[in-house]
Amino acid sequence: MQTVARLCITCPDKPGIVASVTNFLYSHGVNVTCLDQYSTDPEGGTFFMRLEFQTPHMDITRPALEKSFQTVIADPFAMDWSLSFSSDPKQVAILVSTSDHCLMELLWRWARGELPCEITAVIGNHPNLKEKVESFGLAFHYLPMTPETKSEAEARMLDILDGRADTLILARYMQVLSPEFVARFPHRMVNIHHSFLPAFAGADPYRQARERGVKVIGATAHYVTEELDAGPIIEQDVARVSHRHSLDDLKDLGRDLERQVLARAVKWVLEDRVIIHGNKTIVFK
Amino acid sequence: MQTVARLCITCPDKPGIVASVTNFLYSHGVNVTCLDQYSTDPEGGTFFMRLEFQTPHMDITRPALEKSFQTVIADPFAMDWSLSFSSDPKQVAILVSTSDHCLMELLWRWARGELPCEITAVIGNHPNLKEKVESFGLAFHYLPMTPETKSEAEARMLDILDGRADTLILARYMQVLSPEFVARFPHRMVNIHHSFLPAFAGADPYRQARERGVKVIGATAHYVTEELDAGPIIEQDVARVSHRHSLDDLKDLGRDLERQVLARAVKWVLEDRVIIHGNKTIVFK
Amino acid sequence: MQTVARLCITCPDKPGIVASVTNFLYSHGVNVTCLDQYSTDPEGGTFFMRLEFQTPHMDITRPALEKSFQTVIADPFAMDWSLSFSSDPKQVAILVSTSDHCLMELLWRWARGELPCEITAVIGNHPNLKEKVESFGLAFHYLPMTPETKSEAEARMLDILDGRADTLILARYMQVLSPEFVARFPHRMVNIHHSFLPAFAGADPYRQARERGVKVIGATAHYVTEELDAGPIIEQDVARVSHRHSLDDLKDLGRDLERQVLARAVKWVLEDRVIIHGNKTIVFK
Amino acid sequence: MQTVARLCITCPDKPGIVASVTNFLYSHGVNVTCLDQYSTDPEGGTFFMRLEFQTPHMDITRPALEKSFQTVIADPFAMDWSLSFSSDPKQVAILVSTSDHCLMELLWRWARGELPCEITAVIGNHPNLKEKVESFGLAFHYLPMTPETKSEAEARMLDILDGRADTLILARYMQVLSPEFVARFPHRMVNIHHSFLPAFAGADPYRQARERGVKVIGATAHYVTEELDAGPIIEQDVARVSHRHSLDDLKDLGRDLERQVLARAVKWVLEDRVIIHGNKTIVFK
Repeated sequence: MQTVARLCITCPDKPGIVASVTNFLYSHGVNVTCLDQYSTDPEGGTFFMRLEFQTPHMDITRPALEKSFQTVIADPFAMDWSLSFSSDPKQVAILVSTSDHCLMELLWRWARGELPCEITAVIGNHPNLKEKVESFGLAFHYLPMTPETKSEAEARMLDILDGRADTLILARYMQVLSPEFVARFPHRMVNIHHSFLPAFAGADPYRQARERGVKVIGATAHYVTEELDAGPIIEQDVARVSHRHSLDDLKDLGRDLERQVLARAVKWVLEDRVIIHGNKTIVFK
Repeated sequence: MQTVARLCITCPDKPGIVASVTNFLYSHGVNVTCLDQYSTDPEGGTFFMRLEFQTPHMDITRPALEKSFQTVIADPFAMDWSLSFSSDPKQVAILVSTSDHCLMELLWRWARGELPCEITAVIGNHPNLKEKVESFGLAFHYLPMTPETKSEAEARMLDILDGRADTLILARYMQVLSPEFVARFPHRMVNIHHSFLPAFAGADPYRQARERGVKVIGATAHYVTEELDAGPIIEQDVARVSHRHSLDDLKDLGRDLERQVLARAVKWVLEDRVIIHGNKTIVFK
Repeated sequence: MQTVARLCITCPDKPGIVASVTNFLYSHGVNVTCLDQYSTDPEGGTFFMRLEFQTPHMDITRPALEKSFQTVIADPFAMDWSLSFSSDPKQVAILVSTSDHCLMELLWRWARGELPCEITAVIGNHPNLKEKVESFGLAFHYLPMTPETKSEAEARMLDILDGRADTLILARYMQVLSPEFVARFPHRMVNIHHSFLPAFAGADPYRQARERGVKVIGATAHYVTEELDAGPIIEQDVARVSHRHSLDDLKDLGRDLERQVLARAVKWVLEDRVIIHGNKTIVFK
Repeated sequence: MQTVARLCITCPDKPGIVASVTNFLYSHGVNVTCLDQYSTDPEGGTFFMRLEFQTPHMDITRPALEKSFQTVIADPFAMDWSLSFSSDPKQVAILVSTSDHCLMELLWRWARGELPCEITAVIGNHPNLKEKVESFGLAFHYLPMTPETKSEAEARMLDILDGRADTLILARYMQVLSPEFVARFPHRMVNIHHSFLPAFAGADPYRQARERGVKVIGATAHYVTEELDAGPIIEQDVARVSHRHSLDDLKDLGRDLERQVLARAVKWVLEDRVIIHGNKTIVFK
């Protein structure tokens, strides 16, 4: 596992991309073990590719590989690309409020080794989850936030996160972050919303769902953008409900959905399986 | 099967309803084989009940049973109620446009005996499904409709349907009916919408879904009310999709959902399993 | 919640049961809030019923109610019945081996108040989960078991459980218990099996599933009987898999299924929603 | 659509396969629009790949391409491979007995253009579906089969199918075909079994399912091999059931599963998405 690397590519589609990239990697002793690609349109579309490869026989250093790839492949094809190595796991910070279910699910999976990352901080605007977080050997930062203290609290958060958070996960964090804060983590903040967006955006989605009388409820993991609940969707799932489900029943059932959906989305993000394309995602799973 | 009857009740909840109703039926030699009940609130809520019973040993006539039930049970409890006998199947009319998938699904199930009803008319605003309908031994009425001819066409429809349609099914009927027409079939028109409402109400839901980048698509069967796509939801279902699904793929997948969801909803309506409560439904299945 | 009671009934079907039972309860000031019934056959079948009712206005004591019910209702109808009060929650013991996922799921839900029971003991044949169990304020008993020490270990288990376990939950407990032990908890032990039984009974079901190339895997919660993996099934669920899933992937995915399926089954058992009928279950949910 | 081609490859895994194949195609003016690959093991495993490509700018003839591919690519890598062109759709024959649901589903989808194939024959061992088949403009062959006439009937079937059936679909065909007949269509016969195999193999699976008290039922599309119900599984799906489902309810519900599962499997087979590997399938969808 220490020798796995992942390459993600976005570029204008044209013939020869797969051949060029795989040739390049092959010529450097790299063994591609997994390749996914997708084009929005065979003529004039946008091309996306994700490769997993093994590096034990790679014949150059990482910096040399990156430099050569840029010159030989990426520049001619006008590629956006990123390369990550499993030996350098992503750094993740988690933001929480009072609910523990999404947080516990992530920490439990992380402790089992299911989520390939380093958790560098858990920040709560309430103190109640401190003990649970610390039982995993992780630091808990209590940062209360009111309308008055918001900009100050966000500044302190940025201090804590500075250089230590590739990805931010909002695990039922009930504060709306400022556009300035969001802009500091472009395409790097994942939120879980407790409805099958775009239905029931905004507050109290389970109440909205009950009032509308829907027969399925859902949960949505998405990237956070300036516009609330409107960022690119990573994963969704649903459960059947009936008239018998009280509001509390919906919340109970919804918690299970939220845990599963957020855990899947986070795993895929950490494994570089998610490529953002405008307001949508390509998920190579 | 000829001796099954179904009783649906809505009334203010209070102690003793189940005992009173079941005693009444027992005292008349009727054997309850299925009983479902639900209360919105144990204190001061609305109570709903559906009973299926066998009538071979019933000791009075149907009219006598109905009259006695009204006096002895329904009046004291302020009940709305309806009683139906499987020997008097509902009369159903189906409205279609050019798409055949929902229509064929219903006709195929009806021909198998899965849908307990008499189909009294199929009306299309395009002529292309005439032959398919007639191959089932059913009458097809071609009633084209333009903005100019709408009121006239609706009047002709009412003539065709007069006294012959307990329930109207819009099987991908792409015309918006006038409020006056809708008002003639209160809580008696079932529509299939090709999204998991309330998401993507209105036109072109698959295109909307694709543009939003959702990971599940759905279909919704609902009663038609004056407000478009806002009536009580009877049934919904969803399917997983990914970035790989083109708009045509979504439509293909969606057709399967629509067929299943509409068929289930229609079956439940015909079996008196659906009770409307405000803008929601109680479905005893 | 403290005033809710639940009555479960099994008896030969005949006309008048619902009327008699609901009349009896109504006559004692009890308000039925939920009623489910089922008959295997309208003529000569077996009848099952579950009622939930509110007791604040009950006009007699519990023992008097039980005695009167036996005489007035149960005896004439030849009923098996049980009555439970939410103010007397069930006592539950959990058996575990080394895997923590099912155990943690149950404890986390129990701590949230989702599982209405008292957990009186957690017994492990390995010591590794001791700390996790104790962090919930619960006692952990380490009882190693080898073929040689089995009967002794089971005897010690019976000591620990004596009078303190209405229900035993095998949360991935990897020891086969002796028929004598099983006989002490008739219809009171719930196990989680990691396949959609009856497929892949026995050991290593995920490996069996992978070798057969199935496209869905599952998990099954069932009552333990003398015959291994053959007891009445309470709940099952499945997940889609493909050729891409390695054995480890199946196990990861399966763990999520096992957690959900066992948690649902346990909740239903604790709420008296499961009635055993031969080798099958009636689940009123 | 007329210019799409599909290449399927199986070979021992080793570095450089993707690069070699994509280079070869690129060098002949072919534009790869879809590529899926899978290896059972990065070291010493078996490698599978499916490519879709566009041929309008291909610089050689099909026979020349095939010959060159064999020499330049397939031989060095010891590949099993097949190449198909959408302009040469597969020829399909369907075998039926009395049930129409799977047949109608296939014919309806085929008539819509969802199944890219030519249907060359429908053969029934009962005459009752003749009219329905002919209404699609297809030939229906009535070939009754008894134990005594089996070998003769199979011989007549082979006459009808000779050179006109790449793929045989058993759409609820209730006769067991002889090993000799099966051997004539190696990996080319698709059957639908009405259970989630390997559970409930053999006859009457819905009855078996009901007796075991399972909470999910399923359907399985698989290739036919000599051993009954044991061939490579292509697709499966399931539906939830409860104690309330009678045997007839299970059959009704199962029919919907069978239609969906068989239709999906047939579509994938026709699009060359299914590669057989021992007793399992790789499905690139």
